[in-house]
Amino acid sequence: MKHTFNIHENRFGECRHEIVGIVTEVGSKVEKFKVGDRVGVGCMVGACHSCDSCDNDLENYCPKMIFTYGAPYHDGTNTYGGYSDVMVAEERYVVRIPDNLPLDAGAPLLCAGITVYSPLQHFGLTKPGMHVGVVGLGGLGHVAVKFAKGFGVKVTVISTSPSKKKEAIEHLGADYFLVSRDPDQMQAAMGTMDGIIDTVSAVHPLVPLIGLLKSQGKLVMVGAPNRPLELPVFPLIMGRKVVAGSCIGGMKETQEMIDFAGKHNITADVEVIPMDYVNTAMERLEKADVRYRFVIDIGNTLKSA
Amino acid sequence: MKHTFNIHENRFGECRHEIVGIVTEVGSKVEKFKVGDRVGVGCMVGACHSCDSCDNDLENYCPKMIFTYGAPYHDGTNTYGGYSDVMVAEERYVVRIPDNLPLDAGAPLLCAGITVYSPLQHFGLTKPGMHVGVVGLGGLGHVAVKFAKGFGVKVTVISTSPSKKKEAIEHLGADYFLVSRDPDQMQAAMGTMDGIIDTVSAVHPLVPLIGLLKSQGKLVMVGAPNRPLELPVFPLIMGRKVVAGSCIGGMKETQEMIDFAGKHNITADVEVIPMDYVNTAMERLEKADVRYRFVIDIGNTLKSA
Repeated sequence: MKHTFNIHENRFGECRHEIVGIVTEVGSKVEKFKVGDRVGVGCMVGACHSCDSCDNDLENYCPKMIFTYGAPYHDGTNTYGGYSDVMVAEERYVVRIPDNLPLDAGAPLLCAGITVYSPLQHFGLTKPGMHVGVVGLGGLGHVAVKFAKGFGVKVTVISTSPSKKKEAIEHLGADYFLVSRDPDQMQAAMGTMDGIIDTVSAVHPLVPLIGLLKSQGKLVMVGAPNRPLELPVFPLIMGRKVVAGSCIGGMKETQEMIDFAGKHNITADVEVIPMDYVNTAMERLEKADVRYRFVIDIGNTLKSA
Repeated sequence: MKHTFNIHENRFGECRHEIVGIVTEVGSKVEKFKVGDRVGVGCMVGACHSCDSCDNDLENYCPKMIFTYGAPYHDGTNTYGGYSDVMVAEERYVVRIPDNLPLDAGAPLLCAGITVYSPLQHFGLTKPGMHVGVVGLGGLGHVAVKFAKGFGVKVTVISTSPSKKKEAIEHLGADYFLVSRDPDQMQAAMGTMDGIIDTVSAVHPLVPLIGLLKSQGKLVMVGAPNRPLELPVFPLIMGRKVVAGSCIGGMKETQEMIDFAGKHNITADVEVIPMDYVNTAMERLEKADVRYRFVIDIGNTLKSA
């Protein structure tokens, strides 16, 4: 069941789990892949395969899910993510990258992409004519805009930074831009959104976001602030509104996401760097100075070393 | 379109909107009711009838919904609820009470009943074999237990008061009882519930309740604390869990609820009182000394006066 491939590109950041490459060897029981295939591995490399979540293609919610980086694997060894020239993975956790997607700009979809695609699908925010808000325009937010536009919904980016308006609308294709610190703009948009994907992991107020939702609207958190947020209950009750969380997606859905990305030419905006740029990249990340993901070209770096 | 009937029983409390009686007169355009019918009016008596919510039989979420008590009606007069011997209502806001339901014990279903029935239905918590928690055992909670059992789900009452265990299990038919202040009991029940109906309107911690939910579980708030609650985001994300609000139900669903109650012999536990007992009842309400609703017999009180 083993599956080996060269790492070609790899996203750099907090998670070490957006890995793409070319299959160099397949185990005797592998059915889905052959040598030469363009593939990827996302946030997880294992789960129990016997719980309700696994039975429903939701390995991501299996209590025994194994993260691709820094987690004990079935055999007791540690998982190391994609920081190497070769990786071995079970085929269930490998997805096929569509031919038309570049490997480097496709890599971040394996976490950032599925993290926003899955809640758009699961919470029914994909019907043309719907209006979806995206809070925060970073690694997750910028692909959320692209997927939402791919589904044909109307997209509003909600951000604290007015300076991002041009980027959001002209470059990423959002329909509208809301400055969350502008009470007049927020007031004018009250009750207009079917759903919001909130990618912000800093502590922030939910009241204005809940106010933006229509009746029955859904606010889905995909960024995890390290302290509890304040939840006003009355506005939830008066509109049967929902606040939910969502964590990546199952492997079946991850393949669907990347196929959808191929069909709609959706990629992340990336800056490909060699391994020896990593320290500089870390400094730039702290200043949010990247649009929107660094991708480390580990294969070529090691080849030329 | 007008619809008049005698008030026979009326629930007493904060809302003044669980009203039952017998039709004494019908307007020329009334189609659903005739003189002598047993009917009820719940929390609302009007809405715009042209918005998305109204079009979807969700008058309860219409921004122009008119409360049965203390709200400006279409004609500019105030609504007065059921504190009178006769009431006029538009037939859209009138439900038929099944023949086998007593009017007095059926009355509180028009708010308390629909408030818990609607989220059980809407959030898919009605499949036999499911496990549903009910937080708080008062006017709403005790009928939540009865409806959930009517659907055939497994019910656990979650309460701060160990003294309510016998009542919950022996009298109301709950399957289990959890003392929310007992960390061992709560720990043992972690991750076991498909959904929770939270009827508590005092400020209380959500973390333990979210912990009781399975992956994909739903915590539905139907009581509105007057201050924001603390919402931990990480546990929502890791299990795609939902915190939602729900407010009564539309008129179509209110009729379905009361028909379901008729079929399953579900009534509220009530204490019927005459009008001149109201001050005493108020004092007892402050001490939570009622199981579980006072119903004022306004019709008979006025007849004998």
